[in-house]
Amino acid sequence: MSAAQAGTTERFMAMKGGGYYSKATTGAKDVIDRATPLILDALDRMAPADDGSTFTMADMGCADGGTSIDMVRTVLARIREKVPSRSLQMVYTDLPKNDFSQVFQNIHGQSDLNGYADDISNLYVYASATSFHKPMFPPGSLNLGFSATASHYISEVPTEIPDHVHMVGASGAARAAFEEQGAKDWRSMLVNRARELAPGGRLALFNFGIDEEGRYLGHTGGVSMFDTFNALWQGLCEDEVITGREYRATNFPQCYRTVEQFIRPFEDPSDPVHQAGLRIDHVETRVVPCPFATDFKQHRDPVRFAKSYIPTLRSWSEATFAKGLSADRPIEERQAIIDSFYGNYESLVADSPDGHAMDYVHCYLIARKEG
Amino acid sequence: MSAAQAGTTERFMAMKGGGYYSKATTGAKDVIDRATPLILDALDRMAPADDGSTFTMADMGCADGGTSIDMVRTVLARIREKVPSRSLQMVYTDLPKNDFSQVFQNIHGQSDLNGYADDISNLYVYASATSFHKPMFPPGSLNLGFSATASHYISEVPTEIPDHVHMVGASGAARAAFEEQGAKDWRSMLVNRARELAPGGRLALFNFGIDEEGRYLGHTGGVSMFDTFNALWQGLCEDEVITGREYRATNFPQCYRTVEQFIRPFEDPSDPVHQAGLRIDHVETRVVPCPFATDFKQHRDPVRFAKSYIPTLRSWSEATFAKGLSADRPIEERQAIIDSFYGNYESLVADSPDGHAMDYVHCYLIARKEG
Repeated sequence: MSAAQAGTTERFMAMKGGGYYSKATTGAKDVIDRATPLILDALDRMAPADDGSTFTMADMGCADGGTSIDMVRTVLARIREKVPSRSLQMVYTDLPKNDFSQVFQNIHGQSDLNGYADDISNLYVYASATSFHKPMFPPGSLNLGFSATASHYISEVPTEIPDHVHMVGASGAARAAFEEQGAKDWRSMLVNRARELAPGGRLALFNFGIDEEGRYLGHTGGVSMFDTFNALWQGLCEDEVITGREYRATNFPQCYRTVEQFIRPFEDPSDPVHQAGLRIDHVETRVVPCPFATDFKQHRDPVRFAKSYIPTLRSWSEATFAKGLSADRPIEERQAIIDSFYGNYESLVADSPDGHAMDYVHCYLIARKEG
Repeated sequence: MSAAQAGTTERFMAMKGGGYYSKATTGAKDVIDRATPLILDALDRMAPADDGSTFTMADMGCADGGTSIDMVRTVLARIREKVPSRSLQMVYTDLPKNDFSQVFQNIHGQSDLNGYADDISNLYVYASATSFHKPMFPPGSLNLGFSATASHYISEVPTEIPDHVHMVGASGAARAAFEEQGAKDWRSMLVNRARELAPGGRLALFNFGIDEEGRYLGHTGGVSMFDTFNALWQGLCEDEVITGREYRATNFPQCYRTVEQFIRPFEDPSDPVHQAGLRIDHVETRVVPCPFATDFKQHRDPVRFAKSYIPTLRSWSEATFAKGLSADRPIEERQAIIDSFYGNYESLVADSPDGHAMDYVHCYLIARKEG
């Protein structure tokens, strides 16, 4: 679900008690579950040899491993069928502060989720806390790398955005700086994976992006989610609840890339990614509808919609708004500001629910290592 | 440090705040640091080929990875020197509830400890939450397996001990049942590792045991620690603070093995361990003095000694005493009983400090896989 902020998010979730996180990420799980056939097709094209060597799959930026758990079970079962002689390694990666104990409890069947570790023979599950911008695996040892909804996190915020909280609302030099950082991080991630992939190995990378019609997360024709975040945060500034300094310091450490930006490093013969032998097998964009807005179409209860919808936004955005506030404020004061901010968003949706939806817009990319 | 109970212990520690655990485990770190030459010698005998393949080392039952961190750094640096062409994998294992995030923060230099992850080239650090009584690695892929102060935890308590809290104080059928469970678990751990070791691979297993003079942890000539635990717990029963049912239900899920019991599976030609090709390179016992009792010899302040000494006992024993109490008691009541129990131990030491010492008695075993 995330990379740079997974630990923080997880800890916020932990404070809110079990189940909150997985409910808030229903949509993210839908994204992965519905794209499972793309990975199975990639596996068919890969046609791994049943040669007794170890086959390694990875989920990079896994958070608690919950959103991918059914996909991974399905894919590992297919690999087990195809190459019965090979040991399987499944490696979950995220940053050190991530709750890896929860990952293992989920996979080993010690939580509410349907863990698969004991159901697939000759399978070994591991975790890694190495950033995916660095070497994570021995050269040539990765067979199938998966990552969903993680690479939009950039390794540093390159500049402040003067008039928005997210780069999708930025223009001029600020927009260019975020896009440049986004390109740099995307390239470093891919070059490292190219070194680690076995010849014929595949990457399945499902990332937040901007589609051919300019749509992106929460911006698919109705009320734009990031513009709403920005307007409400700016409103707190105008009401002098937060300072101008705090408003400007609040920037999601994210870059949403266009399809063209995603594929350029693979296609430009002078790019290190192309030169390292990575090629595109398949690329497409999809919109996966917001499950809470979909429910609302049935129940038509604005208060219920607002109550169920805001937590899914809060689950991944809270850390960014909290970080924007001055560290000089007592923690209780910061918490109160954050609570009122999401309270305002909830009131807005309850008062005027139509058009609100955190539809997911992903770019689905399957790449292969030439060999 | 532990296996079956590491998670629980870690959480108790977390509740007590950072630093508590590592202070309480100074002695356990001494045990490993002082035995590092045994592992370096084993590595010399192994003489791994510089053949470009991946070299895998593991710390099995790692808890937070803190007690072994300097040994692992030293050993990995030596391996890096010996086989510059090989990728190194370091795998930390414990049960799913263990705090693996803390392991990664320690190793990746995000804590007070001196992490080594960035200091050794072509090194990949992973975690596993598979029990060491099950397959943890692909067959033939483990080169150097290390485990300290973990295998005394047995996978189940075979029976109640009527008149003691630990099998070292048990006799007759109860003693035999614990020894049988201990033998079964030791064998299953070894048979699994034999399958996973590469030919010529080594195991370095440093475990609590009973030495040739009958000494064991906290029982080296002075006041016996487990007898004190038992007397104080029995005292609470006599004072009707706990019930007879609770007294009898309190049994450390541990087996301390004699040297003879440790080595028998390797030497008996009919044993599955011997048949799987595991042989002993080296075996010895050592007593490592209790650092708190050593300090006391200098400062001679009984209250200060008692205050520093009890936490190291409590760090690993609390979970067992807490588990012995009836689940029908409110949690606050259970906590109060446990607090008074350790309070009694502290008063006893403060009033009559001489002879108290949790000296470590370990059996140090280096084994190789024939190949």
